[in-house]
Amino acid sequence: MEQSVKKQFEDYIKLIEQKLDEFLPVKYPQEIWESMRYSVLAGGKRLRPMLCLETCKVLSGSYEQAIPTACAIEMLHTQSLIHDDLPCMDNDDYRRGKLTNHKKFSESTAVLAGDALLSFAPQIIIQKTPDSVSKDKVLKVLEEFLISAGAEKLIAGQVVDIDSEGKQIDKETLNFIHENKTGALFKLSVRTGAILGNADEKTINALTMFAEKMGLAFQIMDDILDVTSTLEELGKTPGKDAKEQKVTYISFYGLEESKKQVASLCKAACDILEENNIKSEVLTGVVKSISERVC
Amino acid sequence: MEQSVKKQFEDYIKLIEQKLDEFLPVKYPQEIWESMRYSVLAGGKRLRPMLCLETCKVLSGSYEQAIPTACAIEMLHTQSLIHDDLPCMDNDDYRRGKLTNHKKFSESTAVLAGDALLSFAPQIIIQKTPDSVSKDKVLKVLEEFLISAGAEKLIAGQVVDIDSEGKQIDKETLNFIHENKTGALFKLSVRTGAILGNADEKTINALTMFAEKMGLAFQIMDDILDVTSTLEELGKTPGKDAKEQKVTYISFYGLEESKKQVASLCKAACDILEENNIKSEVLTGVVKSISERVC
Repeated sequence: MEQSVKKQFEDYIKLIEQKLDEFLPVKYPQEIWESMRYSVLAGGKRLRPMLCLETCKVLSGSYEQAIPTACAIEMLHTQSLIHDDLPCMDNDDYRRGKLTNHKKFSESTAVLAGDALLSFAPQIIIQKTPDSVSKDKVLKVLEEFLISAGAEKLIAGQVVDIDSEGKQIDKETLNFIHENKTGALFKLSVRTGAILGNADEKTINALTMFAEKMGLAFQIMDDILDVTSTLEELGKTPGKDAKEQKVTYISFYGLEESKKQVASLCKAACDILEENNIKSEVLTGVVKSISERVC
Repeated sequence: MEQSVKKQFEDYIKLIEQKLDEFLPVKYPQEIWESMRYSVLAGGKRLRPMLCLETCKVLSGSYEQAIPTACAIEMLHTQSLIHDDLPCMDNDDYRRGKLTNHKKFSESTAVLAGDALLSFAPQIIIQKTPDSVSKDKVLKVLEEFLISAGAEKLIAGQVVDIDSEGKQIDKETLNFIHENKTGALFKLSVRTGAILGNADEKTINALTMFAEKMGLAFQIMDDILDVTSTLEELGKTPGKDAKEQKVTYISFYGLEESKKQVASLCKAACDILEENNIKSEVLTGVVKSISERVC
């Protein structure tokens, strides 16, 4: 990645982590707030909030309007990880190189911390979005947020994923899982960024397609890394897909063909930006970081 | 309860159940929507949505504006029960006389059904509230809803409740638990009903105090019934408080004094209505049903 793009990534990550820290207080009862903060502030690539902020900036010249929404999406993403890691779901001990929430605290705290984040995230959108954004637009963003978080998107993906363990699923089912489990939040990020950046329908649709390609590339890389990476590099347990007999892109296409698909999806994503005259080093940088990701 | 009030209760319950059924579709993946519907449509007293609808009606002459919010509050209440019943929390097998969600489906489905309801409920407020309600008011209702659902209210109560098991807690802590675990949603119901019914600040505050008294009376009755009732009457396992060494109103005040407190709180609640000239057979009927409840 070029030095100038790397610097922009670092600046965004710094801003996002500072705002997440600021938005999440420690109140009574401390344990629940601390467990929410533990997972939200545990690092991570912050790709989703970065996509939201940059999309808004590239369209309107400023990202200030999008900061609460960007942070809310990261909280939602964290919530889904906390609950995914629970013993009754993926039963993971490590996430982002640290103990998972239920291992650090307790299972009941992890369930409740996830629940609390699910309410707190949209609350932040309402309370912290600047008054310069119309109420209409805040409601539109909230609606997209809540749909993406729910049983029509994120949770639909998770449910079908769990149901598919140990089963021979077809490519359509695998695509459904990834479009919803991973794609939904990438789409939400650019769509809300675009709404807050006053984009027209055509641009919103183009960015949605961009996010679709990118989300799928991200997920295929996830499958690849689960095969090729170590716990140290990955920050979470590798080799889980095989252990849980999960059908992945690798099982359909093999490692080499999967890598080619990532490259092709990343190219398609960048082409969409170019065709729609959306010029952003950060958006293309995110795509590049996916094709080159090692964790 | 008088026949005319009983009829009004029945009409409200019928309306609420019809609307809950209508708002909750069955989509793909069916299992998650069916598990949401299983718990939401499992009966129950529907006191919270009834309070919301009646408060709106008594103030503005109509309850139409409040139907989506009333149903959303019932979905939130159901979500909290589904997660409370999980093995890592209260580990209950029965609720409302039926198997709990995780017993009927699976633990992972119960976690995800709760999560899905947490997003779906505010989504319904946005999508189904009639256009006659201003965007400002919808956002105000949503904000109150999300705060009540989160770590400042409902979840705060649940966390302190779990932390207190087997410990000698003081009366303040017991009050904190009940004010948040039970009181928060009673307050939310009348407050949102009042906001949607165009109430002034004074009336909203009076109704908040009314709900506080009523919520506490409801909770003390819960403690009483846990001692005096059977599984058949209660629809859930009785005697759990003693088994889990939970400090309750009974442990502080004994059974007789607790019953007196219920009567005194119910009277205080009705007095607030009278002092503020809020005339509603249904609101006083709800209070009465609490003082007389057997399940």
